Amino acid sequence: MTTTSPQSGPVAPSTSVLRPLPHGALRLTGGYWGGWQERNGAVVLRHCEDWIERIGWAGNFDGAASGAEFAHAGIEFVDSEVYKLLEAMAWELGRTGDPELAARYERLVERVAAAQDDDGYLHTAFGRPWQRPRWSDLEWGHELYCMGHLLQAAVARLRTAGSGRLVDVAVRVADHLVEVFGDGGREAVCGHPEIEPALVELGRAVGDPRYVRLAQLFVDRRGHGRLGPIAFGPEYFQDDLPVREAEVWRGHAVRAMYLAAGAVDVAVETCDAELVAAVERQWTNTVARRTYLTGAMGSHHQDEAFGADFELPPDREYGETCAAIASNMVSWRLLLQTGESKYADLMERTLHNAVMVAPRQDGRAFFYANTLHQRVEGSVPPEDDLSARALSSLRAPWFEVSCCPTNLARTLASVESVFATTTDTGLQLHQYGDYDVDVTLPGGTPVGFRVRSDWPSGGTVTIEATADTGTCVALRLRVPAWASDAVLETPEDTRRASGTDTVTVERVFAVGDRVTLTVPVTARLTTPDPRIDAVRGTVAVERGPLVYALESVDLGRDVGDVVLQPGAEPLDDGPDDVRVRVAPRTVRTAGVLPYGGPEVTTEEAGTVRLVPYATWGNRGPSTMRVFLPVG
Amino acid sequence: MTTTSPQSGPVAPSTSVLRPLPHGALRLTGGYWGGWQERNGAVVLRHCEDWIERIGWAGNFDGAASGAEFAHAGIEFVDSEVYKLLEAMAWELGRTGDPELAARYERLVERVAAAQDDDGYLHTAFGRPWQRPRWSDLEWGHELYCMGHLLQAAVARLRTAGSGRLVDVAVRVADHLVEVFGDGGREAVCGHPEIEPALVELGRAVGDPRYVRLAQLFVDRRGHGRLGPIAFGPEYFQDDLPVREAEVWRGHAVRAMYLAAGAVDVAVETCDAELVAAVERQWTNTVARRTYLTGAMGSHHQDEAFGADFELPPDREYGETCAAIASNMVSWRLLLQTGESKYADLMERTLHNAVMVAPRQDGRAFFYANTLHQRVEGSVPPEDDLSARALSSLRAPWFEVSCCPTNLARTLASVESVFATTTDTGLQLHQYGDYDVDVTLPGGTPVGFRVRSDWPSGGTVTIEATADTGTCVALRLRVPAWASDAVLETPEDTRRASGTDTVTVERVFAVGDRVTLTVPVTARLTTPDPRIDAVRGTVAVERGPLVYALESVDLGRDVGDVVLQPGAEPLDDGPDDVRVRVAPRTVRTAGVLPYGGPEVTTEEAGTVRLVPYATWGNRGPSTMRVFLPVG
Repeated sequence: MTTTSPQSGPVAPSTSVLRPLPHGALRLTGGYWGGWQERNGAVVLRHCEDWIERIGWAGNFDGAASGAEFAHAGIEFVDSEVYKLLEAMAWELGRTGDPELAARYERLVERVAAAQDDDGYLHTAFGRPWQRPRWSDLEWGHELYCMGHLLQAAVARLRTAGSGRLVDVAVRVADHLVEVFGDGGREAVCGHPEIEPALVELGRAVGDPRYVRLAQLFVDRRGHGRLGPIAFGPEYFQDDLPVREAEVWRGHAVRAMYLAAGAVDVAVETCDAELVAAVERQWTNTVARRTYLTGAMGSHHQDEAFGADFELPPDREYGETCAAIASNMVSWRLLLQTGESKYADLMERTLHNAVMVAPRQDGRAFFYANTLHQRVEGSVPPEDDLSARALSSLRAPWFEVSCCPTNLARTLASVESVFATTTDTGLQLHQYGDYDVDVTLPGGTPVGFRVRSDWPSGGTVTIEATADTGTCVALRLRVPAWASDAVLETPEDTRRASGTDTVTVERVFAVGDRVTLTVPVTARLTTPDPRIDAVRGTVAVERGPLVYALESVDLGRDVGDVVLQPGAEPLDDGPDDVRVRVAPRTVRTAGVLPYGGPEVTTEEAGTVRLVPYATWGNRGPSTMRVFLPVG
Repeated sequence: MTTTSPQSGPVAPSTSVLRPLPHGALRLTGGYWGGWQERNGAVVLRHCEDWIERIGWAGNFDGAASGAEFAHAGIEFVDSEVYKLLEAMAWELGRTGDPELAARYERLVERVAAAQDDDGYLHTAFGRPWQRPRWSDLEWGHELYCMGHLLQAAVARLRTAGSGRLVDVAVRVADHLVEVFGDGGREAVCGHPEIEPALVELGRAVGDPRYVRLAQLFVDRRGHGRLGPIAFGPEYFQDDLPVREAEVWRGHAVRAMYLAAGAVDVAVETCDAELVAAVERQWTNTVARRTYLTGAMGSHHQDEAFGADFELPPDREYGETCAAIASNMVSWRLLLQTGESKYADLMERTLHNAVMVAPRQDGRAFFYANTLHQRVEGSVPPEDDLSARALSSLRAPWFEVSCCPTNLARTLASVESVFATTTDTGLQLHQYGDYDVDVTLPGGTPVGFRVRSDWPSGGTVTIEATADTGTCVALRLRVPAWASDAVLETPEDTRRASGTDTVTVERVFAVGDRVTLTVPVTARLTTPDPRIDAVRGTVAVERGPLVYALESVDLGRDVGDVVLQPGAEPLDDGPDDVRVRVAPRTVRTAGVLPYGGPEVTTEEAGTVRLVPYATWGNRGPSTMRVFLPVG
């Protein structure tokens, strides 16, 4: 167990097996993630800012500050979009220090601060004479949810700049919440978890145990039916069972995982091993039974919820972008607490597929729901109007409920924070890309590496020491779960790393020492568990960490009737030229109903090209599928 | 083309190929349908009445009549539940004449009548000073929808009693609507179709062409974006395309089919062959691509809507009971217009499976959504509280939105109206059961038959003449589409009726003449079209008109891992002893994710019993599936 640096990424547990790096210790230098982080700073942040301004979501704070009656724009929880944007801007400022961005950030913070009530309460949709009273709709009002994102934004500023106006605002909010909901106060919870991890993190960042205590109360209160009855049932907001008793995540996916993240945070700060174990168990069961191949979670559109075990329809997948981000929030916390590589494996899968399918290549439009099977060509959403969140089509610039774009922005702005960790004696690399890492281990050992990789297209990672460690340091590398046969080359030896989930090089590193991990990346067939009824008789194609998809623009016709030749391995001539052999297709045409009719074979065999799933939908309307029937 | 009798069932087109029977000409005498119609009269009607009274939905009319401010109970369209109950009561009264029921009926009618405004408008949730203004929410307000059901209730009274207080109320409503929405009036439509068929039917019943004209206006106005934008898009309420241009049903399933029914009605009365052809085309495409094996329609919970072509997930089926009823409304109209037996085939499938799965065996609880695959044992809904409509579990006594129980009640109360038709020279039997039919053909030919059958368990229909026809009469019998080898025995000969969809006996019938149709009923495997991705690699078992299901109470464990032996035909020792051979089951257990792990075989082979799908869920909580994987 170690103690964290006061400055770090979004999560800084007071004790953990693996320790997050201090902020700035790992810098992306290019490659896939470096490119996207640049685009996030240059395009996505501005895009979010423009929309939030244009449709009045930032203006709500001006209205609230004015004291006069104003028309609140958007759904009641749009404050949270401003806060997630501020969080993203804070991480980006920590990276670049760009003065123009700093000025924009400070102006927006001032508008938020001006809307805070004297007693610390801050929400633009509740509490004024012409609005609903404070805390009058805990089921759907999202007051604590919004304030949670405000606290997270303040934590980002604390971790990157040490202090700031938003931190003062957040502390006043948190103090107010302690008064209202703390010991002896109102025994209530919010319909949408988020305040729980936020309070713990603010408590860690400013060193105030009262905030952690309040988060603990919120976690413990949940699951006892304190929220009112709703049509979706109490499991929708995880009020059906106490967190420590649940076996699997259920109900609204984002709610379930924000709560789980907060539960781990509370457990860590209160030495509650049982509670950590409960979340580990839920993670294991959910990943084994309720998770899509991309790492996406949540099968139901109606209630944005997990389905039953193995209910994973590719076409009706909801797979909300925010749920993928929430999944990574939990996995990262469990990786830190346990050190187990499976959490980093799922994060890699989820980041590269379920998260990164969301943004359009130009960073100006986003999926909200992420299907694995697009049956009809979508229409192009308007560039200037709000889109409905539920309709999966092409990516849309903005949504009536637009939680995903800002969530993606804060994730991309801090994505490198989950790439590596330290222990007292070593450095662990969990995610690969192009980055430089420099950190001092406890005891003063300097550790520095230049990491370069062609990830996710290729599987070679070269790691060159940029510091003389002077003492023995353990460099631990994750061997992806999908790797069938990895090779590790060190200055002394070459090792096969098959069948293990990490490899470790222990040495006194000298500048220029080089370690290379090579993981064969070749397109492979993946067969789903037969209990996933919706994809029986199909296979998917994966290549390295990427899930591949068949898109109609490459086929020249709809993807609906493609059937693969049984037993045929995919053809791999590089990441942009993955092909599969298709069989003659068979349809039934004679019946009035699509049951029981005779089969008719209608087309010749051949090969068809697949593309990385995350890139689909960037070439105009198309149909698409990930799971391909085998004939 | 023939002219209809003034008294008939719910639908009486002025011209048609086949003519509905006069009301009372066909009487159920027992058997499956006779039993259910009795239970409907004895149990279901009273059950609906009690609930509507208890939770204030009938009381809304008292409140509206009082002139004082009152708290409106229930969602804004609960008036329609009272009207559908009144329709059901009217049909039941027409059958039994029960004076106690008549008194209850008249009392309820008086309460409705008292709430009518002076100008004829009648709705309990709009138009009073403290309510929203009339017609202020055409998208969601359901004002015209409710009034449509009022008109239908009045038509039922007209057709069974010739007149009544409710008829006067309905005529005043209809006159008011002509004034507001007729030629030169407001060019609007209702978000939920229903007024269209209702206006035509009232127009037919009272002989007022203005009502038909208004229905025509409503049909023609639709599809031009007159309804405001909603998150589900304009196709949700079929405002995306004019009815005559659409190729398939889409959007909200009940809305789509109520509209289609109204379009046929309008087309018939206005000699619009193009419009009838459009609905026939939509029926064909929808049945071939968007219909469940049970005849159920509607794949999406979220918007209660049709999915894309072949998007028919069994576990996420919505399959609303009302949509199945609506499908039959359209099929019946097309059967009358075309005489084509395929419409009666779909009605049989839909009635026996998609409709009759809804009521619990005791008639006191109902499914709203009807899944084909129940993955988790449901909890027992409360007998005394409202249930949420969306959660498929066991059948519930009543719902917050409770359109299905009253819709079922009116359907059962008039179910025999779709069993037979006449032409100038003959009688056509479309549905089988136990009934007596007596009708006089144009020209005065008396036709009478006693029909007895063990349908749906068996496939033998005996038809005995109970009248001397004196002249040649064509008795036409439907040979079900599922019949592989039917035999027709007449006094003169025995014919095989394989490969035809009807058989006709032309003779001068004398009392005692007997015709027997025998259709082999043996459990059979049905393979779905490979384009239905969600059931790839599975088969279903059908027996006669019934779809069968595997239920966990018969298995002793969850149904999730049952796999059939390839190529094995089902074992049939009668309707209550249908079994299938199961293969050793295979699961994947080793992976963190349910993809790509090794297979493990865990259990021995054997046989398992299936039950008729419509009866599932009557023996306590269970899991269930219709489509069974083949190993």
